[in-house]
Amino acid sequence: MKKLVRFGVSLDHHLLNDFDRLIAGRKYTNRSEALRDLIRDNLVGHEWDEDKETVGTITFVYDHHVRDLTRKLTDIQHRYQSLILSGMHVHLDHDHCLEVLVVKGKGSEIKTVSDELIGTKGVKHGKLTATTTGKGLS
Amino acid sequence: MKKLVRFGVSLDHHLLNDFDRLIAGRKYTNRSEALRDLIRDNLVGHEWDEDKETVGTITFVYDHHVRDLTRKLTDIQHRYQSLILSGMHVHLDHDHCLEVLVVKGKGSEIKTVSDELIGTKGVKHGKLTATTTGKGLS
Amino acid sequence: MKKLVRFGVSLDHHLLNDFDRLIAGRKYTNRSEALRDLIRDNLVGHEWDEDKETVGTITFVYDHHVRDLTRKLTDIQHRYQSLILSGMHVHLDHDHCLEVLVVKGKGSEIKTVSDELIGTKGVKHGKLTATTTGKGLS
Amino acid sequence: MKKLVRFGVSLDHHLLNDFDRLIAGRKYTNRSEALRDLIRDNLVGHEWDEDKETVGTITFVYDHHVRDLTRKLTDIQHRYQSLILSGMHVHLDHDHCLEVLVVKGKGSEIKTVSDELIGTKGVKHGKLTATTTGKGLS
Repeated sequence: MKKLVRFGVSLDHHLLNDFDRLIAGRKYTNRSEALRDLIRDNLVGHEWDEDKETVGTITFVYDHHVRDLTRKLTDIQHRYQSLILSGMHVHLDHDHCLEVLVVKGKGSEIKTVSDELIGTKGVKHGKLTATTTGKGLS
Repeated sequence: MKKLVRFGVSLDHHLLNDFDRLIAGRKYTNRSEALRDLIRDNLVGHEWDEDKETVGTITFVYDHHVRDLTRKLTDIQHRYQSLILSGMHVHLDHDHCLEVLVVKGKGSEIKTVSDELIGTKGVKHGKLTATTTGKGLS
Repeated sequence: MKKLVRFGVSLDHHLLNDFDRLIAGRKYTNRSEALRDLIRDNLVGHEWDEDKETVGTITFVYDHHVRDLTRKLTDIQHRYQSLILSGMHVHLDHDHCLEVLVVKGKGSEIKTVSDELIGTKGVKHGKLTATTTGKGLS
Repeated sequence: MKKLVRFGVSLDHHLLNDFDRLIAGRKYTNRSEALRDLIRDNLVGHEWDEDKETVGTITFVYDHHVRDLTRKLTDIQHRYQSLILSGMHVHLDHDHCLEVLVVKGKGSEIKTVSDELIGTKGVKHGKLTATTTGKGLS
């Protein structure tokens, strides 16, 4: 069950003003929510450092005209299919495809899949984004 | 048309050995490909610094039981629908959803969409990943 | 004058527990202090994005046996001496020197100095660290 | 002894043009040097991931009027003096001091020193910068 705790934070009023202005620029309507986001982002980073089960997205852009590339990328995905939850394919223009995969596993396993896809010849750009299963980040 | 240029790079042999070991660990089969990836990643960073038209993915995780959250997130996406190319929704567990959006526009516009989604109360974690249209990154 | 403001933050108790464990591992003795640090770090990032007057440190490592390198690095520093507050030189081993410069100016100016030093042939590694004048970060 | 190896890299001519323009903006006079820097920066990141002996700089800004703060920061430095090679102190203005320490040891040890200093109440901003002993980065 969800149990909210309330606690007090002391801040210099200048620091608080600056922070309020910053988060307003980022469209936050609520100071607690902005602080929770800072806290959660730190915890997610820690989750990855500790190599716990977590979730990441792998984004990569490639030219589908490159001979054999689509087949190679599919093969890699099949090899790691127990880790890959889902994928989306977007046609950016006549030549370029973008794929995003949602991958669940230990941080180190997700990195292996990501390295293999991004290292494939013909992939023009790729990035692994560390996110979370959401559990424990109430 | 694609025109390949070949040029020489001089490296100390220790540095080259270390690099070859590093990229083997990252599953590269080819040194040129690894160098091209380093170069392209630098160019993509620059593309974003200059606020040119580019592509990003926005990943966010939330608890769909939070009252009214799904509706709010959908509203934001409709407001920016001219920028959002595509979206994917994954059910991580009984409570948690992950969404990834592929967004195309100026870097600053993509950041606005991202700030608004990630700042929404109830979104537990979010990240903007800067990638590219692929154009000019031959 | 320093005026402290106190305000309440609501957090789920699981999230708070996780955060308390994380900051204990980072040697914080005080939750408010940890939150202030997260807030200040965000504000410093913003200060640099806005190109305001700020402070950075430039760290670089080089082999002082490389012909003419020391002279080149000194020349660059003299050209930008109005920005450079101070410098420190450490002998890492028989060959390698590390220098750290403390630089004050607009973010873009500090980046120019940093690019020029780090781009000099013979500099093996260099990094610009964004920090702050401390003003307004009460 | 230093032994240079020369090898060829193939790049599309558009990609090469874009890279040449990018590195010219960063004041590189030489394409090989720019590539070596990309390679070395990757190797340094890896050195830290593997927790080998390495070098970092710890930068922190604080208000020296905060009661007892200077003493606390000095105490921490003495506790870790076997790791700290050197330090520099800069007076930023009437209130604010910046210190940079050059620290040598395993990455994890350097992080401990950094966490303890940056977590001290009254330190307004701090950053650990990962660099290198220079060895093996010929």
